[in-house]
Amino acid sequence: MTDPFVVIGGDAAGLSAASKCRRESPAREVVVFEQGSWVSYAHCGTPYFIKGDVEHLKDLQSLSPSDIEERGIDLRRNHRVTAIDTESNVITVVNDGESIEYPYGELLIATGARAVSAPIKGADLDTVFTLHGLPDATALRSFLTPPAEFDSTNLGGGTALDVSIAKQYGAMQPPETVAIVGGGYVGVEMAEAFSAWGCAVHLFQRPERLLPAFGTAVGDAVASTLNSAGVTLHLDEEVDQLSETDGQLDSIVYGDGDTLNVDAVLIGIGIRPNVELLTETSVELGATGAVATDEYGQTNVENVYAAGDVAELEHMVAGETTWSPLGLPANRAGRAIGATVGGSPTQVGRVAETAMLKAFELGCGRTGMLDHDRAEEVGFDPITKTITAGSRSGYYPGAEETTVTLTADRKSGQLLGGSLVGADRAAVRINTLATALGAELSVDELERQDLGYAPPFSPVWDPVLVAAKVLNGEL
Amino acid sequence: MTDPFVVIGGDAAGLSAASKCRRESPAREVVVFEQGSWVSYAHCGTPYFIKGDVEHLKDLQSLSPSDIEERGIDLRRNHRVTAIDTESNVITVVNDGESIEYPYGELLIATGARAVSAPIKGADLDTVFTLHGLPDATALRSFLTPPAEFDSTNLGGGTALDVSIAKQYGAMQPPETVAIVGGGYVGVEMAEAFSAWGCAVHLFQRPERLLPAFGTAVGDAVASTLNSAGVTLHLDEEVDQLSETDGQLDSIVYGDGDTLNVDAVLIGIGIRPNVELLTETSVELGATGAVATDEYGQTNVENVYAAGDVAELEHMVAGETTWSPLGLPANRAGRAIGATVGGSPTQVGRVAETAMLKAFELGCGRTGMLDHDRAEEVGFDPITKTITAGSRSGYYPGAEETTVTLTADRKSGQLLGGSLVGADRAAVRINTLATALGAELSVDELERQDLGYAPPFSPVWDPVLVAAKVLNGEL
Repeated sequence: MTDPFVVIGGDAAGLSAASKCRRESPAREVVVFEQGSWVSYAHCGTPYFIKGDVEHLKDLQSLSPSDIEERGIDLRRNHRVTAIDTESNVITVVNDGESIEYPYGELLIATGARAVSAPIKGADLDTVFTLHGLPDATALRSFLTPPAEFDSTNLGGGTALDVSIAKQYGAMQPPETVAIVGGGYVGVEMAEAFSAWGCAVHLFQRPERLLPAFGTAVGDAVASTLNSAGVTLHLDEEVDQLSETDGQLDSIVYGDGDTLNVDAVLIGIGIRPNVELLTETSVELGATGAVATDEYGQTNVENVYAAGDVAELEHMVAGETTWSPLGLPANRAGRAIGATVGGSPTQVGRVAETAMLKAFELGCGRTGMLDHDRAEEVGFDPITKTITAGSRSGYYPGAEETTVTLTADRKSGQLLGGSLVGADRAAVRINTLATALGAELSVDELERQDLGYAPPFSPVWDPVLVAAKVLNGEL
Repeated sequence: MTDPFVVIGGDAAGLSAASKCRRESPAREVVVFEQGSWVSYAHCGTPYFIKGDVEHLKDLQSLSPSDIEERGIDLRRNHRVTAIDTESNVITVVNDGESIEYPYGELLIATGARAVSAPIKGADLDTVFTLHGLPDATALRSFLTPPAEFDSTNLGGGTALDVSIAKQYGAMQPPETVAIVGGGYVGVEMAEAFSAWGCAVHLFQRPERLLPAFGTAVGDAVASTLNSAGVTLHLDEEVDQLSETDGQLDSIVYGDGDTLNVDAVLIGIGIRPNVELLTETSVELGATGAVATDEYGQTNVENVYAAGDVAELEHMVAGETTWSPLGLPANRAGRAIGATVGGSPTQVGRVAETAMLKAFELGCGRTGMLDHDRAEEVGFDPITKTITAGSRSGYYPGAEETTVTLTADRKSGQLLGGSLVGADRAAVRINTLATALGAELSVDELERQDLGYAPPFSPVWDPVLVAAKVLNGEL
């Protein structure tokens, strides 16, 4: 097999795979095609770049193009793959108007995902944004910076910066009132970023709670914190359209025709896997719409792998297939595929959909299955309990309320999922639950874990143990 | 069985047992004999009271005497149990010079532990302290407070305050130079407390590293932090004696006759279980010198239980017996015995010796077996790796180095123990390792856990996962 390992997509999964393959098999030719000019950047860091906590775009890059080339990877930026022929093992790549064919020995689809825009009138206006990538981040940070202070070189984007986007938005008066459509990760994180620039922020969310994936206790706590921070919440509220005057956004229309004047709108209603490239191929998608893979990340087509935000993975709790577009599983699956292709078969691993989120001063975490409908679908009889306990000994300064939710199967006592929210190191505590979940502990076993205690860090009974005790009492 | 459940010792284990027994069996007579005037107080909080982070002695109390009585517990403070007759199920109790006999149905020995003083000349001088209880804390805080600012009522001790101790030390000029003998928990925590009062602090430690129970990486990191904070470390150094002038401490003599003038000495070289009451009984001690118990906390004598700092427990990793005088196991074992006595047999649980410690800005954690000699003794072939990784995404403000040490069995890959140290929420991460240990995960399984990622809280690869990956690579 002399044909190269070809990777489509130069972000977490793709570059993890390329790097690992080169380390395992240093003589192997590894080529990465990336359609954009940015590679190896941290999606999850963009709200903090927009807010200003992170100064430069380049800070979000974990590997520069030259780092990647030093690893012996043939990196081709601004190369768009337009077709895959899995019969003859050849892809078609377009660069600068020229189309070439490129053969592969093994192929990794790591095309990621993209933000979904709302199917509403006005969503294409200039000051209506989604956030999924550095060009979006460039536009938003430039827009928020007052023109007198704006200088595109301050964005720290180097030669990869989209200067035209930066200058277009950098020249505009910053928005005073911003509407966010969607109360998930992006919506909540961007509420903080817009607030930091002094914007009046309105957040519209169709469900009745924020962050549905984190469960009701986290959603309620975050709503309360956003309220206190001056964000106006419009929960259980449908947005109808965005109105314009002379091509400029002027208002958001919602509910029964209510109108709010706004200068910018951010739509954060979710992301979808970039699978369009596969429609003409025999590579199969799963029920989630992402690419179906086996435990080694291989698709139904031999030597064609998929990883990262474009691919499905197996869920730890139920063994079911899930689409969990998060950073660690993308890196892990990419690395595993790189090892497999390099000659050391390695499983991509299962996911618990563990996630953390910052909402102003609150830290939130979630793992596993919290949703009863979903747990019932896979055969569990779920029960959920929520408790609130101190984050430290009550007498020690800085103790904050920590709210823990645990979901278990009533029949077996198995822990199915959990969430945490609080202002004092609550998010990082989710790893205790993620580990308990991965180890398939019952709630009773979780209650008996010997967790740490010291007044500045944790009360005698860690909040997780308190929650396990209460839930165990119901089983 | 109409005779009461009698508890000797009114702190964590004793009161947890008494409370739980009353809840399980509300009609049961439960009597607690406590030789001192303080009950239900947090040992671990005393350094923070001395430092001043905790204002009042009463803040350290989790239950007041009236709280306890409201639970239907017959609490007798200042009652010293002087003898136990396990043939006729009777104890002898002395209060205010009067001796009475008291029958029991079940008896719980929860007499705790006491600080060991150093067997050196001068250890009995007035300004030579140990720290294990509120009278010691009262003396030290009073001594550190300048006389002009001292007012014993500000100590917040209420009627339980030992006013004579407070006034004796409150009238003295505060120490300018303090020597700490012993670099374990108490020594490290008190170095911070003395420094906060402006004392010049010298810490003498016989082993070559601080905090031996936490392993070398933590010991080194804490030493470096103490150095930076101005604490003078005398490691691998033996203290010979404390010299006096006219009955007053004036210096500490160490090494080859070196002398350092000091105004106070704190001896923190360890604690020992209070087992003297048992010497005339048939209750057996284990090899550690603490009371041997079965999985229900019962001693070799039927209906006589032991829990808390006076009792042994089973270690999670090796199944061996250990003496682990820590807060959570004491509370848990007490609660379990209360349930058992109340009619619901409950195991006291196993321990991983999980502990957390604050050393100035550092948080430290440890769990399981780190010591190779000990691991080899119980049949393991230990291997240890230490890594340092970021606590957050590198670009996110506040990221700090987090050092993780993992020890595993080379043959089975089983995780045996771990430690963590760092300035950004490192201590609380120990619970991930404690849970992995309790679940008997291998290092390979730990590496595959789906831990959380968000730039403000954790890098994509949590430091624990990085450590597991590196150690796994050696297995």
